[in-house]
Amino acid sequence: MQLAALRHRTESEDCFVISPHHVRVRFHTAKNDVKKVIAHYTDNYMSTSTDKTIKLEKVGEGQVEDHWAATLRAPYRRIKYTFEVIGEDGSHKIVGDRGVYDFNEKNLASDGSYFKVPYFHKIDMDVTPDWVKHTVWYQIFPERFANGDKSNDPKGTKLWNPNDHPGREDYYGGDLQGVLDHLDYLQELGVNGLYFCPVFKASSNHKYDTIDYLQIDPDFGDKALFAKVVNEAHKRGMKVMLDAVFNHLGDQSMQWQDVVRNGKKSRFAKWFHIKHFPVTTFNDPTKGEGDPAYETFAFEKHMPKLDTANPEVQDFLLEIATYWVKYFDIDAWRLDVANEVDHHFWRRFHDAVTAIKPDFYIVGEIWHNARPWLNGDEFTGVMNYPYTLQIEEHFFQKTQTAKELTEHLTDQLMMYRDMNNQAMLDMLDSHDTARLLTVAHGDKKLALQALTFMFVQTGSPCIYYGTEMGMTGSEDPDCRKPMDWSKKDSPIWKKVHALIEFRLKYATTLGKGKIKLTTTPEGLIKVERQGQDQITAYFNTTSHSVKVDTQSNLSQNYENGQLKAKGFVITVKH
Amino acid sequence: MQLAALRHRTESEDCFVISPHHVRVRFHTAKNDVKKVIAHYTDNYMSTSTDKTIKLEKVGEGQVEDHWAATLRAPYRRIKYTFEVIGEDGSHKIVGDRGVYDFNEKNLASDGSYFKVPYFHKIDMDVTPDWVKHTVWYQIFPERFANGDKSNDPKGTKLWNPNDHPGREDYYGGDLQGVLDHLDYLQELGVNGLYFCPVFKASSNHKYDTIDYLQIDPDFGDKALFAKVVNEAHKRGMKVMLDAVFNHLGDQSMQWQDVVRNGKKSRFAKWFHIKHFPVTTFNDPTKGEGDPAYETFAFEKHMPKLDTANPEVQDFLLEIATYWVKYFDIDAWRLDVANEVDHHFWRRFHDAVTAIKPDFYIVGEIWHNARPWLNGDEFTGVMNYPYTLQIEEHFFQKTQTAKELTEHLTDQLMMYRDMNNQAMLDMLDSHDTARLLTVAHGDKKLALQALTFMFVQTGSPCIYYGTEMGMTGSEDPDCRKPMDWSKKDSPIWKKVHALIEFRLKYATTLGKGKIKLTTTPEGLIKVERQGQDQITAYFNTTSHSVKVDTQSNLSQNYENGQLKAKGFVITVKH
Repeated sequence: MQLAALRHRTESEDCFVISPHHVRVRFHTAKNDVKKVIAHYTDNYMSTSTDKTIKLEKVGEGQVEDHWAATLRAPYRRIKYTFEVIGEDGSHKIVGDRGVYDFNEKNLASDGSYFKVPYFHKIDMDVTPDWVKHTVWYQIFPERFANGDKSNDPKGTKLWNPNDHPGREDYYGGDLQGVLDHLDYLQELGVNGLYFCPVFKASSNHKYDTIDYLQIDPDFGDKALFAKVVNEAHKRGMKVMLDAVFNHLGDQSMQWQDVVRNGKKSRFAKWFHIKHFPVTTFNDPTKGEGDPAYETFAFEKHMPKLDTANPEVQDFLLEIATYWVKYFDIDAWRLDVANEVDHHFWRRFHDAVTAIKPDFYIVGEIWHNARPWLNGDEFTGVMNYPYTLQIEEHFFQKTQTAKELTEHLTDQLMMYRDMNNQAMLDMLDSHDTARLLTVAHGDKKLALQALTFMFVQTGSPCIYYGTEMGMTGSEDPDCRKPMDWSKKDSPIWKKVHALIEFRLKYATTLGKGKIKLTTTPEGLIKVERQGQDQITAYFNTTSHSVKVDTQSNLSQNYENGQLKAKGFVITVKH
Repeated sequence: MQLAALRHRTESEDCFVISPHHVRVRFHTAKNDVKKVIAHYTDNYMSTSTDKTIKLEKVGEGQVEDHWAATLRAPYRRIKYTFEVIGEDGSHKIVGDRGVYDFNEKNLASDGSYFKVPYFHKIDMDVTPDWVKHTVWYQIFPERFANGDKSNDPKGTKLWNPNDHPGREDYYGGDLQGVLDHLDYLQELGVNGLYFCPVFKASSNHKYDTIDYLQIDPDFGDKALFAKVVNEAHKRGMKVMLDAVFNHLGDQSMQWQDVVRNGKKSRFAKWFHIKHFPVTTFNDPTKGEGDPAYETFAFEKHMPKLDTANPEVQDFLLEIATYWVKYFDIDAWRLDVANEVDHHFWRRFHDAVTAIKPDFYIVGEIWHNARPWLNGDEFTGVMNYPYTLQIEEHFFQKTQTAKELTEHLTDQLMMYRDMNNQAMLDMLDSHDTARLLTVAHGDKKLALQALTFMFVQTGSPCIYYGTEMGMTGSEDPDCRKPMDWSKKDSPIWKKVHALIEFRLKYATTLGKGKIKLTTTPEGLIKVERQGQDQITAYFNTTSHSVKVDTQSNLSQNYENGQLKAKGFVITVKH
């Protein structure tokens, strides 16, 4: 048995309290190396002779590991537990708090062999809002979704042409009135969550260079209009998520401009990370210009980084964060460049917004492993790039085989607690990436197959505006074309609509059920979801037809028990 | 190569920021399985073509793993890095954020291969106070250290007889005047940290059942006297640590008595975890009495558990925590049953006390792996039982071989960040365990050998009162005999004194230097410390003599290059 591969970590994604009397534990072993894992457990203040046992379930096969899990009950809200591991080679071990030992009575009776959860504190529990698991998001890039009010069009606004390739500085006149005018459309499409890219006053068309977080950008409308959008969305059962850029300010902001003018004497000088004054020259080390005069987002001189350890900055940002919740009733914040802001700030942020709305949804933009932010006291979920990028690597780039994909995704699911996996924001494209249909080489069936695969995963799925219209677009700014309103009710629109309906109809199982990802001997990907219903989905990403004899609740390229290339078939059993 | 054994975790004890521009990374592999580990790293916003590389040092051999580490420099306070791993079998892999991949240019250039530290935040850094690394502690159980004032002796105080076997309810009259009278003695002994068991008003001789945290127990003295003790200690360069029991109250406390009298209507009813009223019957499930009426420490009905999620309770306890720092200038808190109090509370506690004294020392009583509390925002260190109990298992119980000991201790050192390892409270006995000399079967040489071994480890060593006098005592209450003042300047006293002097003379190296634990082919334990000086220590825990040709700065049973059983020799090179 590979002893160095036996892995468990207390108070982490391997051990998390799920109710006042239950804790979920995971255990990891080298692949195909272990026959059985059994947890022995009892109360911390009871003798190990009162131990109960439970066999862990093999919940998934990863790239190089097998993953196991079980739920343990603790009548007195505390537990000690150890793992008995039986290897395929017959070895028999205990894995506990101080290492790996031979399985025998003496070691099983030794307190040092036991991991401990000293007390199940409700306040320390990682709880994620239930509504997120019943939500399909729709991401709106406001400047490009719909122009509902010509009177606020910026100077030089271009003609609304969905086939245009927008330049970086172009304006098309999209605004909040345009969103309001299309809420009925979005309801018809079926989504029940609106995720807005920034709407606050800023210099650019994308508004990520905030000038004033307490003002709606005049290009988009005003607060009265925004309040109307939120209220009308809520009336339709839709949640509203805004985008907050708290890592940095735009250089046109009042604060930075004050630093530009007054240097060291500016009362905002300590709001930023400034190494030397004046800040009028920046110095980009990637261009060999030497040491930057101040810290920024990336090496972007127009985006000076805020010092969120400064209590004044914290208070300033928390006022903004709570303002839009308290007075406009928004339901979620998506946090731009969330990983570069300190953990202390995010804990304050979490406490501030959940004090107003306990089921508030907080989504960090993090492209890499986000474990440090997902312990219940910072974010609810993150933009799930490490998950969805791998879906693309298999379906579109073919750089991963089907088996590699299911293994890597299974490993990804082991990175976070179940409740966080269920609250991930899953997307195949966004304003920051090329469009789904473009990445899918313009192949609508392939795009829909991958989108459907994403919709049966754990996590809250998100559609980028225009995907339902079959819009194309390469990397930013080309992925930000004006919305193509001409394609409503086209075949692709109908399919996306059906997919959203399906996801929401079975939200309990798809949102919170167990998940198992495997491949069949014929090379199909099989996704099994077990909850209120039993949902099984097969995806054919090979180039040939495969026989699959099942009922179909939703399918593509599936006929007479034959699942063709680019096809999928989903079956629901009640 | 055992791929499932390749292990690294970002933002943890495997990856911690040690300066605004440096991060320490650790990597783990199956034992004897890997030839070389190389980190490739660059700025997060620079191309991987700018990667620098550094070979990780093999810093230790654990039970089933080899441990590797390196320090990486990040000029712009952020870093991405990945590990190149070359197996003994020639396999060549990259271990990165999304798994294990073949080592090749494509994978090395892929952003998904890189772990990230998005930004080095000072506020999130785990910093431990430097003075702790230069401190030798002396633990005082006030009722048994010295009786300096007969006038405050409790009724029925027994004669001060160091050979008595105290009963659970006995009193001997020890008090703070006794400590004050012996500060010169403690200075002569050489310790520079005083760790007091509880001194607050309580019902018992051990004072763990607090009645009033804001009153010095009248058996011990009063606040004026305590202030004098602290001031006089500080004058002598000694730090002062108090013991706080914040998990539970004593049942004689005003608050619990109010609940006893007024039940549900008590204004303290929500301070505790009460399941049903009245609380006059408890119900001990270990005695088959059914479900307890209220939660307690263990199943101890006299110690009702506080609900530290209740803001009123938090404020009450934080007032106490800060009171003794603000007005009495104490330097450290030792926190009783620290693992059973919630993390949210400890974060508030940490912020409250360090706001007054930035270099305050916070030590949790945790007997198992304490990783969840040691991330820089809760405790500085813990009572290092998982470490020191293993020392005893080898030196006294012989249930571990020398090699097993060095391997297990090496693994323990990998559980925490370096700065936390340096701030552990290391002890071989306490008021909660049998005395060192008793555990060492009455063998003074063996006891001194083990104590010396502990003194050359990383961590802040602590001597339990009377150890320097060669006192014996089995489990509590026998380990709490009245201090034997007759043995000052005895041979054991002189050896303990010399050991303390040695530790403090080389505190920089022993407190903060690198550590490597191995065994020699002859079965000696070798401890190497590398810092300002190079210190090498050999311990002979075999039953025969072994030739060791070295200089001796401190030794026992070492003559003419022969290290006899129970011997040690320590060499310092400048």
